Parts: sequence; C-alpha cells; structure tokens
Amino acid sequence: MKKQHVSHAVIRRLPRYYRRLTNMRDAGIERVSSTKLAESLGLTASQIRQDLSCFGEFGQQGYGYNVEALRAEIATILGVDRGYNAIIMGAGRLGQALMYNFNFAAHGFNLLAAFEGDTEMVGTEITGIPVYHHSKLEEFAAEHPIHMAVLTVPQPVAVETADRLVALGVKGIWNFTHVKLVINDPTVQVEKIHFGDSLLALSYMMSEE
Amino acid sequence: MKKQHVSHAVIRRLPRYYRRLTNMRDAGIERVSSTKLAESLGLTASQIRQDLSCFGEFGQQGYGYNVEALRAEIATILGVDRGYNAIIMGAGRLGQALMYNFNFAAHGFNLLAAFEGDTEMVGTEITGIPVYHHSKLEEFAAEHPIHMAVLTVPQPVAVETADRLVALGVKGIWNFTHVKLVINDPTVQVEKIHFGDSLLALSYMMSEE
Repeated sequence: MKKQHVSHAVIRRLPRYYRRLTNMRDAGIERVSSTKLAESLGLTASQIRQDLSCFGEFGQQGYGYNVEALRAEIATILGVDRGYNAIIMGAGRLGQALMYNFNFAAHGFNLLAAFEGDTEMVGTEITGIPVYHHSKLEEFAAEHPIHMAVLTVPQPVAVETADRLVALGVKGIWNFTHVKLVINDPTVQVEKIHFGDSLLALSYMMSEE
Repeated sequence: MKKQHVSHAVIRRLPRYYRRLTNMRDAGIERVSSTKLAESLGLTASQIRQDLSCFGEFGQQGYGYNVEALRAEIATILGVDRGYNAIIMGAGRLGQALMYNFNFAAHGFNLLAAFEGDTEMVGTEITGIPVYHHSKLEEFAAEHPIHMAVLTVPQPVAVETADRLVALGVKGIWNFTHVKLVINDPTVQVEKIHFGDSLLALSYMMSEE
C-alpha cells in the first residue's frame, strides 16, 4: 500500500492525525469531515487529503471519514500493529520517568526489560519491568528479539551502547541523549527527541504577544 | 518585524533552522546557501526562503546566508534573547532529568527554582537550583518575575498547579503531563511535548523497510 518517497513532513503529521483520531474515537465520535479534522489540527482539508493520498484512498466524497476505520488504517501505516519489542538502555532518572509515565503499549511497543550500569536498580523491577545489568544485554537478546531500544544512558557511553544494539540487530533507536549517532547500517532508524525545539516554539509563542 | 498569521508549520520549523545554524556555527561554517541549508534539513530551498520571508529579508541573492547573522535573527524571532525566567513545578524523576540534562540557558531561559511536594528534595539544591516546597510558590513569585513554568507534577495536581501559575501571571507553560490544560487567559501559551509522536515516527520508519 505504501508509496515511495513519503516526505519527512508527512511522516511527522501522521502521528498527529493518529493522536487526534484516537481522542475523537475515545470521545465517541464516529465520523469526521476532512474540514473538521483539519481545523482541529490547524491544517487545511486539502493538506490532509493530500497527505493521506500517499497511502491509498480514504473516506468517501462528501461523507467524511469513519474515525475508527481511518484510525486503524493510520495505525497500520505507522506500524503500531507490528508487535515490536522494546528495551530501555539506561534506567536513570529519564529512563525511569519513561517507564513510569509513558505508555509504550499504547504506541505498539512491548517493553521487555531495562538495562542499567552498576546501580541498586539492577535485579529489581520498575513498573513490572525487570532491570538487568547491561552486561546481560547480549544474553537477553539471544532469547528475545529486540526491535527497538530507548537510549537513555549517560552521554559518554551512548555511542558504544548504540553500536552494541546495532550489532544485535536492533532496527530502531529512540535517542534521548544529546549525542548525534552515526549508524552505518541503513536499515537502522534513529529518532532523536528534541526537547529544545518544543521549548523554542513555546518561546516564540510567548514572544508573539 | 513580525507579520501576523505565521503558520503553526513555520513555528515548528524555526527551531530546527536555529538548531541547524547553531551546529553550523559551532563547526566554524560562516556562510551557507539556502539550497545547502535546505538539503541538511530535508526541505526545499524555496520552502526556507518562504518561511523566512514571514519575518523580513534575509541573505543576499546568489550569495547565501551569513550563518551567524541568520542564527542571531532567528534567535530574536524565537525570543531566545528575552531573558525569560523559568521554574520547574515537580522535581520528580522527569523534573530532575530535565534539571540534570536539559540546557535551559542555551534556549534562553533562566531556571530560577524548582517546587516539590512533601519529599526529601525540598530544601536541597539540584544542579545548583534550589528546590522549595510548592506552598512557597506565591511568596517566591512575589519577589521574582516568572515567565515560564515547566509542568512535571503528578497528573492529579496538574490542573490546579496550572491555575496557580496563571494566577501568578506566568505566560508560558511547558506541559510534560498527559493532562490537556484548558486555560481561559488567551495571553498564556501552553506547549505540550508529545513523546508519542516521536516514537510513532520512529515506528513508521522502522516499518517502511
């Protein structure tokens, strides 16, 4: 179903569509026009139709979208239904904050384990997820396929940790460190989360008044 | 200098321009063509020229942009030079992770203090920032103007905390909770950080292979 060359901008908008449609579904809304959906996202209806046209035909002319059906289609496009396994490398403050507050399952990821250095966390469970010493990573990976790893290790070990993950066949790294990773394997995707971009957008909005 | 009606999409791209130009400056690059800048961001040169045209004239035809000058202009547009004061409401795992790892000053914010509930953190300093009991918020605000607050409190107190901040005249809330804040004061800006959007973009890229 997917076409080639879906732009970066479209890839960034899809999660927003998914999030909005999930909220609509949870609010009991069954049908939405592209105009209404666009308005709620600060986009134009033609933008949304154009974005979705990258992936096939959705909705009926003059009839709008079935919220649940469109949501399910976008879930499939985003890979939410693939059952990816995930681990967390680094159960420090940020790693723990994600374990306590972020719903991996709702985004299609099964969080299997966390790995830490020589800290008191090792051997415990956090929110039901076991924390192992990082030296056990390869042993663990031999028994459980790992598709994605959250990188919340300290800066100095970010690169060597990423290299270990790539060697184990991990296909996605969610990078929360400040280190820019250079991965030579083109099948490995790295997503860096930029808190700063969000704060600067807020700063802009505060300065606009 | 600012025009009205700068689109949401432009506001989201400006921080990326700023980040890229900062990297270029730090790498000693003095001049960049709009084509090169666009390529490095996965955009088109005309997109960048169009975005910047919202704010005035930049660069010289056929000569490109002066990296430092454009960076400084975008810094001004983003409000990085306004000297905003910030506080953190909630010095739990996530609040602490931000205090240890996020460079507020590099984004133009002076982090003055953190506020916490009844925990052992109160009365200590984290990375040199004092942690006060949240009951001291109003007293603190009477002595220090607070422009922005990071909201990393537990979910159940998110709304009441936001209400207190708005009553104190805070003009920006960086919301890390899952709670959707409804603020009636139109001069208050709320920016919610969506970790999930980032993870879903990664999921998409992993599924594209």
